[in-house]
Amino acid sequence: MTDDIHMGRAAKLALEMMRSNKGGPFGAVIVRNGEVIAEGWNEVTSSNDPTAHAEIVAIRAACKRLGTWVLTDCDIYTSCEPCPMCLGAIYWARLRRMYYANTREEAAAAGFDDAFIYDEIPLKPEARKIPGAKLSHPDMQRAFEEWIKKPDKIRY
Amino acid sequence: MTDDIHMGRAAKLALEMMRSNKGGPFGAVIVRNGEVIAEGWNEVTSSNDPTAHAEIVAIRAACKRLGTWVLTDCDIYTSCEPCPMCLGAIYWARLRRMYYANTREEAAAAGFDDAFIYDEIPLKPEARKIPGAKLSHPDMQRAFEEWIKKPDKIRY
Repeated sequence: MTDDIHMGRAAKLALEMMRSNKGGPFGAVIVRNGEVIAEGWNEVTSSNDPTAHAEIVAIRAACKRLGTWVLTDCDIYTSCEPCPMCLGAIYWARLRRMYYANTREEAAAAGFDDAFIYDEIPLKPEARKIPGAKLSHPDMQRAFEEWIKKPDKIRY
Repeated sequence: MTDDIHMGRAAKLALEMMRSNKGGPFGAVIVRNGEVIAEGWNEVTSSNDPTAHAEIVAIRAACKRLGTWVLTDCDIYTSCEPCPMCLGAIYWARLRRMYYANTREEAAAAGFDDAFIYDEIPLKPEARKIPGAKLSHPDMQRAFEEWIKKPDKIRY
């Protein structure tokens, strides 16, 4: 019942922000102990930011509000199954649980690349549509070695 | 040769920003026609933003500078193989090509979750460490139907 209310809010944000041309039809809400901590909606085209998906916007807002980079005891309600970028962000933010309404297949049918990107992720870098190539650098061997030994490092 | 210069800059950012406690040892540079458009480094712990990985920071800065959400003719030089979040962002930003120095396995050995998240992505939502559950909502059926028919939509 409470879950439906939060998902209803995410869906309402998706509908209303799409209608006012903020971006695609996507919304997200982050909740802790029943309290809404932050909301987000797609702002890619209105803010010139390809990373401004609803989930990313909501995670950044929640972290700003709570003064932390971990949302361990928070759940996210998102109007659509997260794309790999947003799913990755959900892991880095250490969210507890994720609820989604529409699926990646429905997103693909509406013209979004989510399913395509899911298919690209497991490929070897050089086989992807955006090809990746390894280019080692001695400073990066040094950087990881220093990080491992760094006494005052803050893990995340 | 030019590639080495750009990767050297990404590596230098990784080293220097880690030493000044901005975050983890990661840097990225975005280049168009040989010109550096934007730079980024990991700022997760210094900015309380779990999405502030070097690649995301560089992509957002490049888009802001160019006033667009697509970086079609740009390449990214990143000091480490991108995590799924950053790889997703590279697709949404439509970058042309990606160069990386260290690998996800080296990142894992240095204590970062990149490889773990790569392993989680292909699992069914309900089987993941951060479990996902489907919770349909009628407004979201409506939202996608409206988007498909929307005459003034801006695709991204």
